Amino acid sequence: MKISGKAYRTIWPISENAVEVIDQTKLPHEFRTRTLKSASDCANAIRAMVVRGAPLIGAAAAYGIALAMREDPSDENLERAHDLLLETRPTAINLHWALKRMRDALRNQPRETRAALAWTEAAKLCDEDVETCRSIGEHGLKIFREAAAKKKPDETLNVLTHCNAGWLACVDWGTALAAVYMAHDEGIKLHVWVDETRPRNQGASLTAFELGSHGVPHTIIADNAGGLYMRQKKVDLCIVGTDRVTANGDVANKIGTYPKALAAADNRVPFYVALPSSTIDWTLKSGDAIPIEERSADELLKMTGRTPSGALATVEIAAPGSPAANPGFDVTPARLVTGFITERGLCEASKKGLRSLFPEV
Amino acid sequence: MKISGKAYRTIWPISENAVEVIDQTKLPHEFRTRTLKSASDCANAIRAMVVRGAPLIGAAAAYGIALAMREDPSDENLERAHDLLLETRPTAINLHWALKRMRDALRNQPRETRAALAWTEAAKLCDEDVETCRSIGEHGLKIFREAAAKKKPDETLNVLTHCNAGWLACVDWGTALAAVYMAHDEGIKLHVWVDETRPRNQGASLTAFELGSHGVPHTIIADNAGGLYMRQKKVDLCIVGTDRVTANGDVANKIGTYPKALAAADNRVPFYVALPSSTIDWTLKSGDAIPIEERSADELLKMTGRTPSGALATVEIAAPGSPAANPGFDVTPARLVTGFITERGLCEASKKGLRSLFPEV
Repeated sequence: MKISGKAYRTIWPISENAVEVIDQTKLPHEFRTRTLKSASDCANAIRAMVVRGAPLIGAAAAYGIALAMREDPSDENLERAHDLLLETRPTAINLHWALKRMRDALRNQPRETRAALAWTEAAKLCDEDVETCRSIGEHGLKIFREAAAKKKPDETLNVLTHCNAGWLACVDWGTALAAVYMAHDEGIKLHVWVDETRPRNQGASLTAFELGSHGVPHTIIADNAGGLYMRQKKVDLCIVGTDRVTANGDVANKIGTYPKALAAADNRVPFYVALPSSTIDWTLKSGDAIPIEERSADELLKMTGRTPSGALATVEIAAPGSPAANPGFDVTPARLVTGFITERGLCEASKKGLRSLFPEV
Repeated sequence: MKISGKAYRTIWPISENAVEVIDQTKLPHEFRTRTLKSASDCANAIRAMVVRGAPLIGAAAAYGIALAMREDPSDENLERAHDLLLETRPTAINLHWALKRMRDALRNQPRETRAALAWTEAAKLCDEDVETCRSIGEHGLKIFREAAAKKKPDETLNVLTHCNAGWLACVDWGTALAAVYMAHDEGIKLHVWVDETRPRNQGASLTAFELGSHGVPHTIIADNAGGLYMRQKKVDLCIVGTDRVTANGDVANKIGTYPKALAAADNRVPFYVALPSSTIDWTLKSGDAIPIEERSADELLKMTGRTPSGALATVEIAAPGSPAANPGFDVTPARLVTGFITERGLCEASKKGLRSLFPEV
């Protein structure tokens, strides 16, 4: 997608020994890229959320393995890089998926071929992610078309999203936002309510930035406001991404997704979850088993922004001395989800629904 | 209640022509008081949220009328001050109640007696608010005792609250937090999950400050986190205040209360609303008719806090150019409320429940 008219991906190779990423910790205040030259660079970037979003974490981890193979293509180093990258974030399953894919592609291969093989495989994984997101967008677009057809000609379709499931969370396009972009581009009159998404504000920072850059009408709201707007019939549909879907259709996603889904159900607002199939964890029977990442209290107690002079400053915002807790994700039970939007099409949020699209698993 | 060992109310007369208030826009960063000398000072303080919280808004408005009577005790000035103060905030009904009470007390009284009469009446209203909150606390305490009795001896009772319904929202004691203080003081082992309460962060700023000052164990969480914690059985009960309760038991309160009540209902966590009877709007049949205040987008787009040097700074936190919407309140339907805690005792959140406690209305 484009920033100031120039097409970008979130991650791209710049040489045989380095990849470049957009530094998402600086957005929306500054647009900067960062060069990653080793598996440890990649692990640090994932941990510090320089790159974030389940699909992009997977892509960055894949390049982490590829960079490790440039340094030392031994089995030992492959395992070391795999484990280092795996422990960066616990909730998103795409990380496991991407690392397993890389390891499977490299194991039993001659050491001298591994570096080139890994590089090709990581690039392929990224290209496939773009294709997958495009497909998700096209399937999601059907939902938008149907919803728009129910509105009067001069009415706007109001969509609510939580966190950032846009192109910045993936390699390109996005999951939930792919359909938003396609609907907007084909002339559907839509407007997006952007949940701020405390405590890291990925909505106000990244989703608003993305939508603004593409010219999609949107309004930032507090996470607290969506329930009221649904009661006031100001939301036609909700669409979010996910970090892990379990075999029964439960959805782990950014903290605050579950209360939003409850409000949608209470007001009969359709609630869709968009995901690549790499996000499905077939090994877990239900969402209760998903590990929930506990993040730093500072994310809640401090806030970074632009001062009137344009410089960045971090301020402490809470009562001094008060502790904070900061779980990063919650689990939305399948019963609250209207449907899944995957690269293979739409399905019910259930074991049966998932199996109907992915019978081979 | 006490701050640094010294007992305070939120509003108190300092002479025959002035009242002093705690400037709540500076908390928790600085403890400052401000002198209000006219009805217009009071109106500005309410509008700018120097004083906030439904009961305290009523108390400040009462003193606003009293200060107006010092300047000019005419009927015209009484009406002028009444209207000026009434239009400061639309959602809290205590404002209407307090202004009506003051006007009823002054009308048909000789002009030369009005200033003294108004001063006495405002002081009485404040004293009664303290008594009312104490009673609410004592009735709420029964719920805490029962909930604590169900825990094992070494277990902590976990209470979740949204926004600030503590003594800073009233003249003293608080509504929802009155019972928390009393339970803590009598040795019930409790811990409070404090919702940050975006966008003005009254939870992280005021509730955390209050609880910390009194030594009540607490943890600040993002508004998004309560749903997860309820699913994880980390919340035993929710208790909040309200700005207006309609005749059928619907509850207007700080934006974000409704999704929290939905999460409580979905997890069978009791959800209580504490209120003085002055918060009941007997004239409205349901919550849909309550006007919802729209506040400045800046509350969402900017954040004030302490820099490392200790100075206060305001930073812009969202994507530049993105608009924001900022509704201040939402409505929680009576069906989601376990019960009301009033100065006359506990009742069901329904017309029948309210009538059982207030048959004379």
